[in-house]
Amino acid sequence: MSTNRLESFSDGVIAVAITLLVLNLAVPIPGFDHRSLAHNLGHMWPQYAAYVTSFITIGIIWINHHYMISRLAQADRTIMLLNLLLLLCIGVLPFGTNLMATYLRESHGQSLAAAVYAGLFLAMSIAFASLNRHILLRKAHLLGQDLGEERRRAILGRSAIGLIPYVVATALAPVSPYATLIICAAVAVFYALPIGSGGSQS
Amino acid sequence: MSTNRLESFSDGVIAVAITLLVLNLAVPIPGFDHRSLAHNLGHMWPQYAAYVTSFITIGIIWINHHYMISRLAQADRTIMLLNLLLLLCIGVLPFGTNLMATYLRESHGQSLAAAVYAGLFLAMSIAFASLNRHILLRKAHLLGQDLGEERRRAILGRSAIGLIPYVVATALAPVSPYATLIICAAVAVFYALPIGSGGSQS
Amino acid sequence: MSTNRLESFSDGVIAVAITLLVLNLAVPIPGFDHRSLAHNLGHMWPQYAAYVTSFITIGIIWINHHYMISRLAQADRTIMLLNLLLLLCIGVLPFGTNLMATYLRESHGQSLAAAVYAGLFLAMSIAFASLNRHILLRKAHLLGQDLGEERRRAILGRSAIGLIPYVVATALAPVSPYATLIICAAVAVFYALPIGSGGSQS
Amino acid sequence: MSTNRLESFSDGVIAVAITLLVLNLAVPIPGFDHRSLAHNLGHMWPQYAAYVTSFITIGIIWINHHYMISRLAQADRTIMLLNLLLLLCIGVLPFGTNLMATYLRESHGQSLAAAVYAGLFLAMSIAFASLNRHILLRKAHLLGQDLGEERRRAILGRSAIGLIPYVVATALAPVSPYATLIICAAVAVFYALPIGSGGSQS
Repeated sequence: MSTNRLESFSDGVIAVAITLLVLNLAVPIPGFDHRSLAHNLGHMWPQYAAYVTSFITIGIIWINHHYMISRLAQADRTIMLLNLLLLLCIGVLPFGTNLMATYLRESHGQSLAAAVYAGLFLAMSIAFASLNRHILLRKAHLLGQDLGEERRRAILGRSAIGLIPYVVATALAPVSPYATLIICAAVAVFYALPIGSGGSQS
Repeated sequence: MSTNRLESFSDGVIAVAITLLVLNLAVPIPGFDHRSLAHNLGHMWPQYAAYVTSFITIGIIWINHHYMISRLAQADRTIMLLNLLLLLCIGVLPFGTNLMATYLRESHGQSLAAAVYAGLFLAMSIAFASLNRHILLRKAHLLGQDLGEERRRAILGRSAIGLIPYVVATALAPVSPYATLIICAAVAVFYALPIGSGGSQS
Repeated sequence: MSTNRLESFSDGVIAVAITLLVLNLAVPIPGFDHRSLAHNLGHMWPQYAAYVTSFITIGIIWINHHYMISRLAQADRTIMLLNLLLLLCIGVLPFGTNLMATYLRESHGQSLAAAVYAGLFLAMSIAFASLNRHILLRKAHLLGQDLGEERRRAILGRSAIGLIPYVVATALAPVSPYATLIICAAVAVFYALPIGSGGSQS
Repeated sequence: MSTNRLESFSDGVIAVAITLLVLNLAVPIPGFDHRSLAHNLGHMWPQYAAYVTSFITIGIIWINHHYMISRLAQADRTIMLLNLLLLLCIGVLPFGTNLMATYLRESHGQSLAAAVYAGLFLAMSIAFASLNRHILLRKAHLLGQDLGEERRRAILGRSAIGLIPYVVATALAPVSPYATLIICAAVAVFYALPIGSGGSQS
């Protein structure tokens, strides 16, 4: 099976998920309280931070997904199903993003919300690494060009290293949900900047 | 007419429907009741179960749709209209999924909600089988390669067998909505696992 | 400019609009009133009728859009802008559909809601006919193959005839909103059935 | 890397964002107040004005994006990331549009809402111009055909000129939010009309 429609469907799901993030940004109801719009919009900063973090993270996953699939000459059913699992993790991110932003400053629940947020990023990264591993180690005959084993293992190693910050971010959630958000945002910025681009093309 | 744009439009609708499922996952309102976020998130488990079940089911329908259309060299108007009917059934699934998850533990309405949920999967499977039947029996001249009649009947037979669990799940709804959900989830897992992949490539 | 990306973007907007219709189907809140779920779901029938009518109508517009653009070898900026106007009319249909379904049985506002609903279909058909007219009469040199003037006028004539039922449906809204809905639904069914397919390939 | 999938993903995000605008159009709740539906629908005119303005503006950005990317023979990672930034700005527009429309006639907050609205258009235009500048000045070797430096600077000049009305619209927000909306709408109409098409193909 050609990879065209796999790409097209994945592009669709990722594009919808990334754009649905905006629904988390609720317009303050006029006259709801006595505070100014400036105050209410400012009060929403966790939503903006979480929006930008999730948007860039999903965007980078899309770029990496593009590289991963472009190595394939053909896809088989297992690849499609692992890909579906990855899309499931991406599809649930608008919920995790909203959860994180809503509870970041609450006295109760903020640790759990942060753990779910970073945990979903971790799950997404694991799904990505699993698919990458399956393609590079098990289905090397479906690759468009022959990558040496060393090169394949190097790509996988970078995928695995990418999991570490999300493990740390999830583990830190009970200590400080702010630290969790900062780490997730830092990962996004790191991969977005030129310095991080080598490591993320996996 | 080429099948490219038929695939592109179908991919779009299916990708949007599968991603809109996340809107059913509502973030608990902070301070709404005296329960912890952990309790409230745990209480939402029917939403997670229904989300995953519907996501995987729609994903598998997409994979099977891919196989079905890839056999076609050309599409005609009847194929497009039957395909539209299939998309209509898929498009309504976010509603059915939310209905099922919302009423699963209610004392009133849970049987009807489960029957609607499984019934929509059944309707989707019937629409899929009808389109497949139309393509394989009536429009065999539009196929890209000549499949023997025996092979075509075998594919259709598998499509028809795929309806049975949804008939059972719908019929069991008045007895136990949980059984309905479990059957629908089991169907998704069965087709997702390698063991089920032979039978679902129809 | 090639028509590929025009098709791809149009497919995207139409696919999202058609799938967003499902958001109009709200799950009844458990325990909100003393009525059974069966009653509450049955009470929503205008939503189902409007959902199916709008879904099929948008689907048929998509099919016809496909035929219209497939005649073009190239697109220019005017075609893109008229196409954008058509997409604007399609994009607003989820709102019109919800308005119609919400007010169909209200004692006040039902005529206006029905007029808006049919009026939006009329606007969409006018936008479609305008784009078709522009392509066939003004930009005939961009067509992939030379259609004789007679053939082009025949296609446009069918586009124009397609406006009539929506004019009637809009005009009848003050008399009976039900008649408006029935006419819109009948148009969708007519074009979906084989008997109507000749006239709609415009 | 080929530009196909960059286009496909961008088309997806832009198509979803433009279509999500319709969710800002809320159907008036029947019987909520004693006013007629006609009054309530008429009262929503800022929503319609903002909807049409944003829809056409996003549509024109899409057309211009099409021209920009079609000049490229290949994309690299920096182009993808600048493109992601542009998509982020486009993706947030449904929020800005709703904010503007909700507060346009409020006694408090309308200036800020208008400033945010025009400011988001400005940010989008800056992101667009930055990507264009990067492509035309830094990555000229990736262009499909050799454009002379003069031609490239002319294209960039038009991009830069396109920022001016949004700077003015943002600056005028404290004076009159209506003026802000009118300028944004006028920009959309200007580029949509044939007279503006020369200047916007950048």
